[in-house]
Amino acid sequence: MSNPRDVAVLVGSLRKESFNRKLAKALIALAPQSLKLEIVEIGNLQLYNQDLDASPPPEWTAFRDRIRRADSVLFVTPEYNRSVPAPLKNAIDVGSRPYGSSAWDGKPGGVISASPGAIGGFGANHHLRQSLVFLNVPILQQPEAYISGVDKLFDEQGGIANESTRGFLSKYLTAYAAWIERNAAAR
Amino acid sequence: MSNPRDVAVLVGSLRKESFNRKLAKALIALAPQSLKLEIVEIGNLQLYNQDLDASPPPEWTAFRDRIRRADSVLFVTPEYNRSVPAPLKNAIDVGSRPYGSSAWDGKPGGVISASPGAIGGFGANHHLRQSLVFLNVPILQQPEAYISGVDKLFDEQGGIANESTRGFLSKYLTAYAAWIERNAAAR
Amino acid sequence: MSNPRDVAVLVGSLRKESFNRKLAKALIALAPQSLKLEIVEIGNLQLYNQDLDASPPPEWTAFRDRIRRADSVLFVTPEYNRSVPAPLKNAIDVGSRPYGSSAWDGKPGGVISASPGAIGGFGANHHLRQSLVFLNVPILQQPEAYISGVDKLFDEQGGIANESTRGFLSKYLTAYAAWIERNAAAR
Amino acid sequence: MSNPRDVAVLVGSLRKESFNRKLAKALIALAPQSLKLEIVEIGNLQLYNQDLDASPPPEWTAFRDRIRRADSVLFVTPEYNRSVPAPLKNAIDVGSRPYGSSAWDGKPGGVISASPGAIGGFGANHHLRQSLVFLNVPILQQPEAYISGVDKLFDEQGGIANESTRGFLSKYLTAYAAWIERNAAAR
Repeated sequence: MSNPRDVAVLVGSLRKESFNRKLAKALIALAPQSLKLEIVEIGNLQLYNQDLDASPPPEWTAFRDRIRRADSVLFVTPEYNRSVPAPLKNAIDVGSRPYGSSAWDGKPGGVISASPGAIGGFGANHHLRQSLVFLNVPILQQPEAYISGVDKLFDEQGGIANESTRGFLSKYLTAYAAWIERNAAAR
Repeated sequence: MSNPRDVAVLVGSLRKESFNRKLAKALIALAPQSLKLEIVEIGNLQLYNQDLDASPPPEWTAFRDRIRRADSVLFVTPEYNRSVPAPLKNAIDVGSRPYGSSAWDGKPGGVISASPGAIGGFGANHHLRQSLVFLNVPILQQPEAYISGVDKLFDEQGGIANESTRGFLSKYLTAYAAWIERNAAAR
Repeated sequence: MSNPRDVAVLVGSLRKESFNRKLAKALIALAPQSLKLEIVEIGNLQLYNQDLDASPPPEWTAFRDRIRRADSVLFVTPEYNRSVPAPLKNAIDVGSRPYGSSAWDGKPGGVISASPGAIGGFGANHHLRQSLVFLNVPILQQPEAYISGVDKLFDEQGGIANESTRGFLSKYLTAYAAWIERNAAAR
Repeated sequence: MSNPRDVAVLVGSLRKESFNRKLAKALIALAPQSLKLEIVEIGNLQLYNQDLDASPPPEWTAFRDRIRRADSVLFVTPEYNRSVPAPLKNAIDVGSRPYGSSAWDGKPGGVISASPGAIGGFGANHHLRQSLVFLNVPILQQPEAYISGVDKLFDEQGGIANESTRGFLSKYLTAYAAWIERNAAAR
């Protein structure tokens, strides 16, 4: 049997009790055996400044190396001010440089946005997708994943309390796994 | 005669020799007497993390206070990965919190995007505008300012070498000054 | 007492029993005395084709004249395929031409999006706003209006059944009326 | 040898002398043998109105059938008012209905935007991509195609006068052909 695909999961919120981090952990538990999801930390990355790339901070180098090793990238993010949270945009910018050696290039990906409110991070989801066009990260189109009411999603063990949401996320992960295979084969 | 309007200028790039910083300085020199433009630094702001707001970093507090004092905010920014650069998104996120005490609320604003390439930061410009809807920052619609070829814009003294671009930026600043008056009066 | 402001209301759906049309009618009933809202029909406009402007269809001319007469424009629209419905985009394109004589120029406006689902037309709302930057239509920023569950919004007389939604829409209209005054005065 | 892939080309402008139509024709001539590009007309489609789907206009039915037969869809479009031209949005809306039987579902696609100005239809390009997420049309990410100066692109025979643009479009078509194969295989 082949090794599972290595999926780097990026969580858009740095808050310790972040709902999106909980969602990422629930996804790790729900993932099919063909995928190995791992959260890659982004909170220790210095704000992107091109001048620093003359002698890049070790946190940047480690992050870029980790993304380069991954077979795929999965974004799990809230919306801040109708767009991508700064810490996640920073990870994207850091990973994209220096020019000509982006760590993202060609890796298939997925975007899941989640918020306590009704809209489920729609604005963050699509702004992120616009960046990923440039970064040559083909993103799963369907199912779209806008998770509303994320603050009420979890049971006491951190699982997804609601059966229909659990079913949706499993379906998402199945489609995502197929998306990775399709795009990995063609790289 | 009334005091000039205090305009906080936010530059999207942290690079020391940033073209957008040069553009901001050229705008300061071109501004009409009714406006006093000042660059507000954003490179020292920690990545936004809601947990830190229990005891906010002094840099956050100083930044929020500075924005609160301003009559208007002017964004001068490149595009990173088809969207708003992380350092600028971070300033926006920091200034928007804690919930219910956003520093941006109600301040009239302007968006100028600039890039060496042909497209002039269109993606960053409009993603930023989407955030500013939520933040209740009414933004000047016309003229739109997408500055292409920003790397070739300046003379040796840092002025705008090209007369037509200089004329455009002056026209922009005149419209922007009127926009501030209109919206300031109504607050 | 001054005349009420003439507000042209554009409804994004052509369906006879359109929820957005019902919402527009409810808004007409809720509007303060300082505003006179009127639905302007867009279903009879030929698909925009620049060649036709050599001898424009009378429907185009009548529509452009009607918009030109208006003090303000209010968009009430569903989302089709995560963007602006074609009939509404067509009205926008028809009203924007010929080059140099756009009917929209300088009119203050508002955007209300509504859908049966949870997301309330967020995608349509912001795509529309991007067009309105170019068209120099300053749009009310707050409150944003994303109306979800629009299919369950109305009582048997076509009023807004839910008191909190009715209150929100009244608040919206009050802010919108102030926005028109602010921007009309400055034209 | 296998049959060439049937690519439905949709041109966003209805103007007879449309630059985007010329660009579509130039693409037909440049396409590799593995692709058969054909322009599908959209100017005769009635404005989308759900009520008409009780007894759909024959033009709608013919259009939907044509899209269903295609292996892939290629959009070649100008930008109108910073977004997708109404005739193209109309084709998208018509093809997407009735609910549950979208003609677009699962077809790999490409987006080329073009304009006489410098920005090359960036706004139209990305608004279109947002719709195509919902419609489950996986879109080639790289190379992105924003064609500026489209009014000066053609020689007297309708070919691409500029060698570097011709080279770029050939490279685009090669990547697009590979994208179709990858996604077709997985359907």
